[in-house]
Amino acid sequence: MAIARAAQDQRPIYKDASQPIEARVDDLIGRMTLDEKIAQITTVWEGKIQIFDDRLELDPAKLAARYPHGLGHFTRPSDAKGAVSPRLARGRDPRQTVALVNALQKWAMTQTRLGIPILFHEEGLHGYAAVGATSFPQSIALASSWDLDLVRQVNSVIAREIRARGVPMVLSPVVDIARDPRWGRIEETYGEDPYLVSEMGVAAVEGLQGEGRSHDLRPGKVFATLKHLTGHGQPESGTNVGPAPISERELRENFFPPFEQVVKRTGINAVMASYNEIDGVPSHMNSWLLGDVLRGEWGFRGAVVSDYSGVDQLMSIHHVAGSLDEAARRALDAGVDADLPDGLSYATLGEQVRAGKVSEAEVDQAVRRMLALKFRAGLFEHPYADAAQAAALTNDAEARALARRAAQRSITLLKNDGMLPLKPEGSIAVIGPSAAVARLGGYYGQPPHVVSILDGIKAKVGDRARIVFAQGVKITEDDDWWADKVDKADPAENRRLIAQAVEAARNVDRIVLTLGDTEQSSREGWAANHLGDRPSLDLVGEQQELFDALKALGKPITVVLINGRPASTVKVSEEANALLEGWYLGEQGGHAVADVLFGDVNPGGKLPVTVPRSVGQLPAFYNVKPSAHRGYLFDTNAPLYPFGYGLSYTKFTLSPPRLAQARIGPGGTTSVTVNVRNDGAREGDEVVQLYIHDKVSSVTRPIKELKGFERVSLKPGETRAVQFTITPESLQMWNDKMHRVVEPGEFEIMTGNSSVALQSTMLTVTP
Amino acid sequence: MAIARAAQDQRPIYKDASQPIEARVDDLIGRMTLDEKIAQITTVWEGKIQIFDDRLELDPAKLAARYPHGLGHFTRPSDAKGAVSPRLARGRDPRQTVALVNALQKWAMTQTRLGIPILFHEEGLHGYAAVGATSFPQSIALASSWDLDLVRQVNSVIAREIRARGVPMVLSPVVDIARDPRWGRIEETYGEDPYLVSEMGVAAVEGLQGEGRSHDLRPGKVFATLKHLTGHGQPESGTNVGPAPISERELRENFFPPFEQVVKRTGINAVMASYNEIDGVPSHMNSWLLGDVLRGEWGFRGAVVSDYSGVDQLMSIHHVAGSLDEAARRALDAGVDADLPDGLSYATLGEQVRAGKVSEAEVDQAVRRMLALKFRAGLFEHPYADAAQAAALTNDAEARALARRAAQRSITLLKNDGMLPLKPEGSIAVIGPSAAVARLGGYYGQPPHVVSILDGIKAKVGDRARIVFAQGVKITEDDDWWADKVDKADPAENRRLIAQAVEAARNVDRIVLTLGDTEQSSREGWAANHLGDRPSLDLVGEQQELFDALKALGKPITVVLINGRPASTVKVSEEANALLEGWYLGEQGGHAVADVLFGDVNPGGKLPVTVPRSVGQLPAFYNVKPSAHRGYLFDTNAPLYPFGYGLSYTKFTLSPPRLAQARIGPGGTTSVTVNVRNDGAREGDEVVQLYIHDKVSSVTRPIKELKGFERVSLKPGETRAVQFTITPESLQMWNDKMHRVVEPGEFEIMTGNSSVALQSTMLTVTP
Repeated sequence: MAIARAAQDQRPIYKDASQPIEARVDDLIGRMTLDEKIAQITTVWEGKIQIFDDRLELDPAKLAARYPHGLGHFTRPSDAKGAVSPRLARGRDPRQTVALVNALQKWAMTQTRLGIPILFHEEGLHGYAAVGATSFPQSIALASSWDLDLVRQVNSVIAREIRARGVPMVLSPVVDIARDPRWGRIEETYGEDPYLVSEMGVAAVEGLQGEGRSHDLRPGKVFATLKHLTGHGQPESGTNVGPAPISERELRENFFPPFEQVVKRTGINAVMASYNEIDGVPSHMNSWLLGDVLRGEWGFRGAVVSDYSGVDQLMSIHHVAGSLDEAARRALDAGVDADLPDGLSYATLGEQVRAGKVSEAEVDQAVRRMLALKFRAGLFEHPYADAAQAAALTNDAEARALARRAAQRSITLLKNDGMLPLKPEGSIAVIGPSAAVARLGGYYGQPPHVVSILDGIKAKVGDRARIVFAQGVKITEDDDWWADKVDKADPAENRRLIAQAVEAARNVDRIVLTLGDTEQSSREGWAANHLGDRPSLDLVGEQQELFDALKALGKPITVVLINGRPASTVKVSEEANALLEGWYLGEQGGHAVADVLFGDVNPGGKLPVTVPRSVGQLPAFYNVKPSAHRGYLFDTNAPLYPFGYGLSYTKFTLSPPRLAQARIGPGGTTSVTVNVRNDGAREGDEVVQLYIHDKVSSVTRPIKELKGFERVSLKPGETRAVQFTITPESLQMWNDKMHRVVEPGEFEIMTGNSSVALQSTMLTVTP
Repeated sequence: MAIARAAQDQRPIYKDASQPIEARVDDLIGRMTLDEKIAQITTVWEGKIQIFDDRLELDPAKLAARYPHGLGHFTRPSDAKGAVSPRLARGRDPRQTVALVNALQKWAMTQTRLGIPILFHEEGLHGYAAVGATSFPQSIALASSWDLDLVRQVNSVIAREIRARGVPMVLSPVVDIARDPRWGRIEETYGEDPYLVSEMGVAAVEGLQGEGRSHDLRPGKVFATLKHLTGHGQPESGTNVGPAPISERELRENFFPPFEQVVKRTGINAVMASYNEIDGVPSHMNSWLLGDVLRGEWGFRGAVVSDYSGVDQLMSIHHVAGSLDEAARRALDAGVDADLPDGLSYATLGEQVRAGKVSEAEVDQAVRRMLALKFRAGLFEHPYADAAQAAALTNDAEARALARRAAQRSITLLKNDGMLPLKPEGSIAVIGPSAAVARLGGYYGQPPHVVSILDGIKAKVGDRARIVFAQGVKITEDDDWWADKVDKADPAENRRLIAQAVEAARNVDRIVLTLGDTEQSSREGWAANHLGDRPSLDLVGEQQELFDALKALGKPITVVLINGRPASTVKVSEEANALLEGWYLGEQGGHAVADVLFGDVNPGGKLPVTVPRSVGQLPAFYNVKPSAHRGYLFDTNAPLYPFGYGLSYTKFTLSPPRLAQARIGPGGTTSVTVNVRNDGAREGDEVVQLYIHDKVSSVTRPIKELKGFERVSLKPGETRAVQFTITPESLQMWNDKMHRVVEPGEFEIMTGNSSVALQSTMLTVTP
């Protein structure tokens, strides 16, 4: 009947939006030549320059000549690739992006044989990484909020700004478990804990795609791309893309949960394979991971895309293929459906099919999955974007307000001897390499306005206090995240800057000092000539000297950490009067820091990662096995700050946990309640955390695992009962046969406001 | 017929040495009560005090009362356990040990129902760890010799001295792969490389047991106990017994080879399980490891013994058992045959059999294996030792000469700007915390005479040079390896010592400075109150200050490292004129150091471990996967000294490798030859090393792997052709189905004198 109706319409089934997607895919693929198919699973990035005219506008003649079989996928239309003119050197603004997207789509829809629209993708980890878009706090900061609604809202704005430019797909969120702070990408993650990262990942995808399990793209939304499957976050020796020589159990207990949860709880359509090898097998050829686990166990039905050049790297880095042809075969075999960002390896597949080295059916499967995305996105019906709308809604007042609120909720108070909140009076020296620069963190966009901490403080205090500023030190000579070469700042120059800072601060009442990173000192290092990992967690350069020199003035100092990786700032932590962890706080971060410094906002963030005292403690995650971290000679094995830790300007008292039932059956569910009371004089937020420990188990289990959390706001004197449901999922483990089971016995149920400040009760699971 | 003959003899089969061992075991076990069986798989250590009289001699009445069912196994008869009198506080000398052993055996043979002799074991990692015995260089030093004959000879002396006291079993060698220098036991290993450790392990077992695959104990020999199976050498965060969250491939490629090689190439009869968990499964309950792999794949037929309290720790550390009873069941199920050192868990098995919780057949299997050891040792026929002989051969002149030679061959020259060899003239300051103390390293014995470096230098130069000494610093207040509490030396006192050292050195011509560890600053940490792991590889305490102060005198300095773990002594390495790595060099180490310093011996050792530049580079082994160690921002990822590195007082030139055939079939064998020429004016040793790299493979492979080595001595001008055979074993890998295969393709064949100074040629393996 479907076919009859289509014939009636005089249009092919694949162009009939009333047809089921599967039928449309079947119909279309039946009409495609092999070359047209290959076009759907390759893409263009470096090659953009070749399809532009002298004015760097799209040249349809060049396009048609270069892509006679159509163009399946186009990488980052807003970026500056191919745009060598000053006008576009930083990338395209909303109107310019829409112009390019629409021109490409017009060509694809009207000038290619089958009129297949192009799939565009963008980056948007913590804000659309494009000119003009809103910049939110970096992922590790968002994770510090422990606020799922916030993460949903932020990702909703990211989706809106990307989609407004006609782009239906984003390469986000990152749900890697981060277990090595030497790794420059730790800032891109939601931290070290499988449960926290799972919940953050689900919230991010719900924000990007909308809630529920629909796989169809909704208005104002984009397809999320879950990345990077997996093991990326514990690279050997801390160097990016290093091997993850970890076992199946480590994968299942720690690295899989965020991916599994997102696949099972959302309508996720795309997953990106990780660069690294796991146990000798690079993820881009890991058919167990991408096939048996992702599609088999978890039921994923979408597309797997490569990380940029991840297929090529099977040859160039991992040496598990002797050529790009072989790399393409191995990746296709394993279930990688598209070769990003340029399709160099998958471009060989047409010839390989003709030579009988690859079956066309295997290519078809990948093509089907990529076409399904386009149908689900409605691109065949609505390929074009509205430039005026894109310009109007991008970085609007609502987005900016959310950026400020997100930053407020991300800031984490690590120490306060009473110095904070500051009074807006007297004189304050605002010093440091990130005081007058609004640092945005890796994968940053280019928001139209940014607010530095100095800006924020000045706006806050107006003429009520005297503000002096000094840079103090430079960390790196430059902060261009893309630059290959990174120069550490000149020590001699820094010592002059330190002397200036000391002079500037000599006559003030208080000092606010920023320390930490630039976007160069901690970043994704993507090649041997583009590095971002460090063998130390100490402050880069002369920052400790700056602190010491200011401390010697004998004035109260608040340190605001603006950094990409946890800093082992033991001495600063001991000697500063107050310490705030901000990570990177987005375009409105300066306002948010001022809001917190002066008490208009009471900080309530909690650390999503353990902060070690030194690099020698690594790995230093909290959910260790009982035999781990026995202790060090001449040194503590305790972290500088534990996972889940963060203070407030008010004081909370938490009750011991109360179980609804102390005994349940193996499939049973119960609840645990904690009363939290604000005993201070100021409204504030507390994050109540639930941890569980299986006391005796058939294989070893972590000493504690986060299984619930809730951030609550309480007025002075207010008490709230926070309740967590304990389900079989909270209690289960992978046994020695790698079955997921709840083992009868005793479980320690621990609640508190960090991973170490816990009270406990015992739950018995009967056989 | 056998039974008939036994009946004729009027003696039971098990007492008939002409019967096959299996028949003797069958016969004996058929006569034993359950309690007598349990006695065979438990042992006594802490309990010794309860069987001694007031004079601390064995009290047969107490013994009979306490062990009515016999005593199967007795832990370390020479040690001081139970010996609280000053006379025996350090342990028993040869005569005292023999007296105890003979008394115990006499009781067992004549006073117990079945007359089953006792199995004794001792420690003897680098010398019998007992009063009076010879102390050789620590394992990591022996490994630095790259001299298999030497390791065989050393272990032959160890065996002789232990066996002379009536003890037929030693808990040695350690064939753990050491991948974390924070770990205090790294000194007990042969280093980081699977091939080197395999060859050293085989040589050690051949020395202890004799060559060949006989499982019967030969005169003057002892049963070796291969330990610790496995994963012990890469503990998480560097803390001893920490989890090894590693994969099957990591096990097979790196941790298994030494165990597999020893099992397949020697007559090894005993293996010890490791304390740690691998992937959630503690080794003491790992039936896959102890059963499928060890007994199944490798064909091991001997006994598996627990590490000390390793069975109990299933409950107390790993929490995979709720009681000692359950711990015993899990260990017995997995194939642990004896519970060392006290049998607390296995003591429950009798009751558990009676309660129907454990089958007696399972107990019988363990008992059989332990009884077989006794029959193979000939204990039923020859249970007694000869005290006079033990006293005479222990630490005899031959043993002492070997100890000196072993130390000479272990010393590794890491830097020399021409300062070495020293002339025995003028004046020399000998300074440092290990200058006047002969440090022996963990599991040390108590040799009758020890030679410090100061002793050795004085003996060498006589009155030809003026020697001044200063301690310089203390590292730890004490150096008792057994002590729970370790105090770092007082910095203020150290600064006084530094000032004294500077004064002592002010007027000398040259300085010889020892730096490194004591037996407390790097050691096996066996509990939370007995620590030996460190989160730093920097020199402990004020040692760097000592170096800096002496360096400031402007005199030539040779640094001799005496240490348990690799030291990240970047600054010392840059500024010292010469640098020797000694690790711990045994009782004659002082002579050997002097021999090398003054050029009577030309050093030829090579590092068996990578020496990192800082703890932040960890893990830092050389045989990494191609995606590892991409690089660090602001820092090198190169080690301070690479695996296989070591200099000489002469200069060697190595030719490129020449293959006998450049193409071989997949099962083929060929050879590679390197010419090595001594281009200097002094006789010396070079260690020619062969590394292989599989260029393209189905799963990722290390960038290079050691597959052969030979230490050669060459006179000035002499050339030697060194030939290595390349076999399928040299080329094979574990593929993605975990089959061991040689994959056709190109193999880079690299030879040289360290893991980085290599020349290469290409070998093609045809399909």
